[in-house]
Amino acid sequence: MKDHPAEMNGAESVVRSLHAEGVDVCFANPGTSEMQFVDALDRTKLMHCVLGLFEGVVTGAADGYARMAGKPAVTLLHLAPGFANAAANLHNARKARVPMLNLVGDHALRHQQYDAPLSADVEGACAPFSDWVRSGRDAGSFAADAMEALAVAKGKPGQVATLIAPADIGWDEGGRMAGPVAPSGPAPLDEDALNAAVAALESGERTVIIAGLSVLEDVRALAQLQGIAEKTGADILAPTSNRRMERGHGRVAVTKIPYPINAALDMLSPYSRAILVEAQPPVAFFAYPGKPSLLLPDTCQTTTLAGFDGDGPGALAALADRIGARPGGPRDTTPPPVPQGGALTPEIIGAVLANTLPEGAIVIDEGVSSSGLIFPYGDAAAPNSWLALTGGSIGIGIPLAAGASIACPDRPVVTLQADGSAMYTLQGLWTQAREGLNVTTVILANRAYEILKGELYNVGAQPGADALSMLNLNRPDLDFVALAKGMGVPGCRVENAEDFMRTLRNAMAEPGPYLIEAMI
Amino acid sequence: MKDHPAEMNGAESVVRSLHAEGVDVCFANPGTSEMQFVDALDRTKLMHCVLGLFEGVVTGAADGYARMAGKPAVTLLHLAPGFANAAANLHNARKARVPMLNLVGDHALRHQQYDAPLSADVEGACAPFSDWVRSGRDAGSFAADAMEALAVAKGKPGQVATLIAPADIGWDEGGRMAGPVAPSGPAPLDEDALNAAVAALESGERTVIIAGLSVLEDVRALAQLQGIAEKTGADILAPTSNRRMERGHGRVAVTKIPYPINAALDMLSPYSRAILVEAQPPVAFFAYPGKPSLLLPDTCQTTTLAGFDGDGPGALAALADRIGARPGGPRDTTPPPVPQGGALTPEIIGAVLANTLPEGAIVIDEGVSSSGLIFPYGDAAAPNSWLALTGGSIGIGIPLAAGASIACPDRPVVTLQADGSAMYTLQGLWTQAREGLNVTTVILANRAYEILKGELYNVGAQPGADALSMLNLNRPDLDFVALAKGMGVPGCRVENAEDFMRTLRNAMAEPGPYLIEAMI
Repeated sequence: MKDHPAEMNGAESVVRSLHAEGVDVCFANPGTSEMQFVDALDRTKLMHCVLGLFEGVVTGAADGYARMAGKPAVTLLHLAPGFANAAANLHNARKARVPMLNLVGDHALRHQQYDAPLSADVEGACAPFSDWVRSGRDAGSFAADAMEALAVAKGKPGQVATLIAPADIGWDEGGRMAGPVAPSGPAPLDEDALNAAVAALESGERTVIIAGLSVLEDVRALAQLQGIAEKTGADILAPTSNRRMERGHGRVAVTKIPYPINAALDMLSPYSRAILVEAQPPVAFFAYPGKPSLLLPDTCQTTTLAGFDGDGPGALAALADRIGARPGGPRDTTPPPVPQGGALTPEIIGAVLANTLPEGAIVIDEGVSSSGLIFPYGDAAAPNSWLALTGGSIGIGIPLAAGASIACPDRPVVTLQADGSAMYTLQGLWTQAREGLNVTTVILANRAYEILKGELYNVGAQPGADALSMLNLNRPDLDFVALAKGMGVPGCRVENAEDFMRTLRNAMAEPGPYLIEAMI
Repeated sequence: MKDHPAEMNGAESVVRSLHAEGVDVCFANPGTSEMQFVDALDRTKLMHCVLGLFEGVVTGAADGYARMAGKPAVTLLHLAPGFANAAANLHNARKARVPMLNLVGDHALRHQQYDAPLSADVEGACAPFSDWVRSGRDAGSFAADAMEALAVAKGKPGQVATLIAPADIGWDEGGRMAGPVAPSGPAPLDEDALNAAVAALESGERTVIIAGLSVLEDVRALAQLQGIAEKTGADILAPTSNRRMERGHGRVAVTKIPYPINAALDMLSPYSRAILVEAQPPVAFFAYPGKPSLLLPDTCQTTTLAGFDGDGPGALAALADRIGARPGGPRDTTPPPVPQGGALTPEIIGAVLANTLPEGAIVIDEGVSSSGLIFPYGDAAAPNSWLALTGGSIGIGIPLAAGASIACPDRPVVTLQADGSAMYTLQGLWTQAREGLNVTTVILANRAYEILKGELYNVGAQPGADALSMLNLNRPDLDFVALAKGMGVPGCRVENAEDFMRTLRNAMAEPGPYLIEAMI
């Protein structure tokens, strides 16, 4: 920490201190109150600065970056409204326990007493969408606050830390470098829980192991999970939505709990024992009249072997050791043939993916109503990382892909993007174009909020014309090829399997972004 | 209130009760937890339902509707993330004291104890961007809560009222119609303030009257203001950003306090007396090193004749009466000639507007860095309503235009839309197309966050390449004609005054939306 100037302002001290601890990407949508940071980033040249044209792009990209890089990026956001625009994807990041550090500009301390046009309760706005919030107090302590925020973000599990940055403490001289703060490590293994898990597996009862978060990212842990299942006859499942799953040939295939309430209840109804590893008891996405909220049967005995704050892979290793299970082997699936001719369906899109994804591809899954049908094909593809919408707040796919690609520039990224959801953060295509990212966005164009039609029936309604007009995205049809062109991303529309397969293969092989509007 | 069924669910009771009190437009971006409302709106057919493809469109449109209709619309938003997406334009609405009523769906009460993917602190998310928040408790009291929210919204000044709607109280039977609650009226005139205002005007000191909100919407009040100025030699000014100004031939021209800090300080430096009418002491948009936050001189004696909660037009009538002023007459300006040939500038765009706006046009002003240069030309045009970005949170223009047009379908709407800001809620173009609104969006394409370049200098920075790349919107250039086409809005790009004038005139004369990308 010697190569910094003797005198610097608060903003520069934050940038330099974060960089010294490995933060080297900044996703930004700055305004006036962040100009000190723009200036400090410009002068120090320590971070790769990525501009988003909307704040939801910024946080979605920071999420995708963190999922693939395994460390947080920093975001730069403008006051309470800018934070609010960013919040939906912070919600998703929190549910995925993704580490992230937000710097949110605020008015200068002396200006906060006045009702200026952009004055608002910044701390109040940040709190519901952050795990940790603090407002910087002066230039001298600003970097130390940032290092505390970084430690919170990097703890186990990952968290969203938000540091509010009044403009004047950024521009005031007196900034001081601050050293790292140790993040919290994982909670120790609970021996009672281990005993209970062993007892469940040896009980002879139908048992399910539900494993999430870092287990699904760790091919060794997945093999251990598979070995335990093979040894004991237990089933293994993943939660409905996952931060990142390492999948494909040579890896263990894990089925997800489905989104539709009836399918989820059916899948979980046989079990009388459940073991949770970095997972919580499965909950329905929504409540419905006459349906339970918790998806496991009332009578199921559930043991949490490792919570979100635990070391899932370590716990599985201990469990395998106790029951004498060896790592299980994957059962590789031959990719299914792609039907020739005929219209595109989610299943055909899945089959094309299984046949075309190159090794190391990253799949971003915001397929919403198509996701459940496409998902299984990922196991039959070459080894890939599969990143999903985690918090149910739509509008993550396009920015998540941008961030993942910035973390892994040599790996092609394919985004499975529902059309309705695409419209929330479509601006991320421009960031993909500016950064020259090899991202292929597949718009799953059914021209509806299709998933809501099912939900309308689930609450007992019989939709008429007015209700359907709230759920259909026709009148006028969206033209995603034109929208992409408007942001500098080339694209085309495809309507059959051959065209889709050829176009997808070419797009992944070429550098730079591309958009395929797949009519399903 | 007889034509409603004996039995209805909570959602239907809310829809019917609101409609009985004049709420007949619903701007919506619903999700699963709002399906009961979608169903109730469908069955009752009492409201015009307008779908936005992003929540910021929904609230921006509800704002534009309320500014022109003089009454609130209701919005339908989905959980905490949906509310967050809507919040930036709620911030703007609050700063403009615009009445609005939000219905925000939440999980069923029994589901709220679980950490479902979309669970979050809905009330905490709503509070910083609402003047009033309540969560509905049961189906029977739900409509009564909605009527209280409506009264809050319609009070003086207008407010943003947010009613959280747990899914089950919407679908439960037992809904009961509720009658109106009286909104608060304006605060009475303060006789001491009136005396102080008279004394200021008779003091012989340089005096300014700063009038906002309903004064600027009322041509009679504006004439009275002008009469007071003529009688006393006082100057009249409007705040920098205003909800709605009635302008053009036959109406009084009022200069706005400029946005740039130095220009604002210069304009206000001569005054030693200030009288505020539905306005507050002017505050700088942002703080800057070495500049004051308050814009009037320290030595200026300021009197608030009417606050935001007062009756500004009534107060001005009383003031005119006390000093014996008659209504002043406008000094109509001949529209300046439009230069032939050459590149487009904000001034030329202003001159074109002055020559082409038809009587009754509505101008939406989110011109940002171009606004100050275009604004004066509005006084030389035919009578028009001029609606501006009020809270500094960019991304209001396109939805504000949609809402204003829905309130006034027979009046052409022209949106002066900065390009950077357009990207925040661009999805509103689709709503304009779906509703067939006569809105002409003029993109002021300077391909930069131009206003931030000045701000960077204001904090003492000398921007280098990295800083400029955060502020320039090139690499790649945005193609707004393609973006509009993607959402079903025709458009073209223009580069000179003749093409702009001809295209604008045609677009306003034709029904339906159009987009002009004006290269400046």
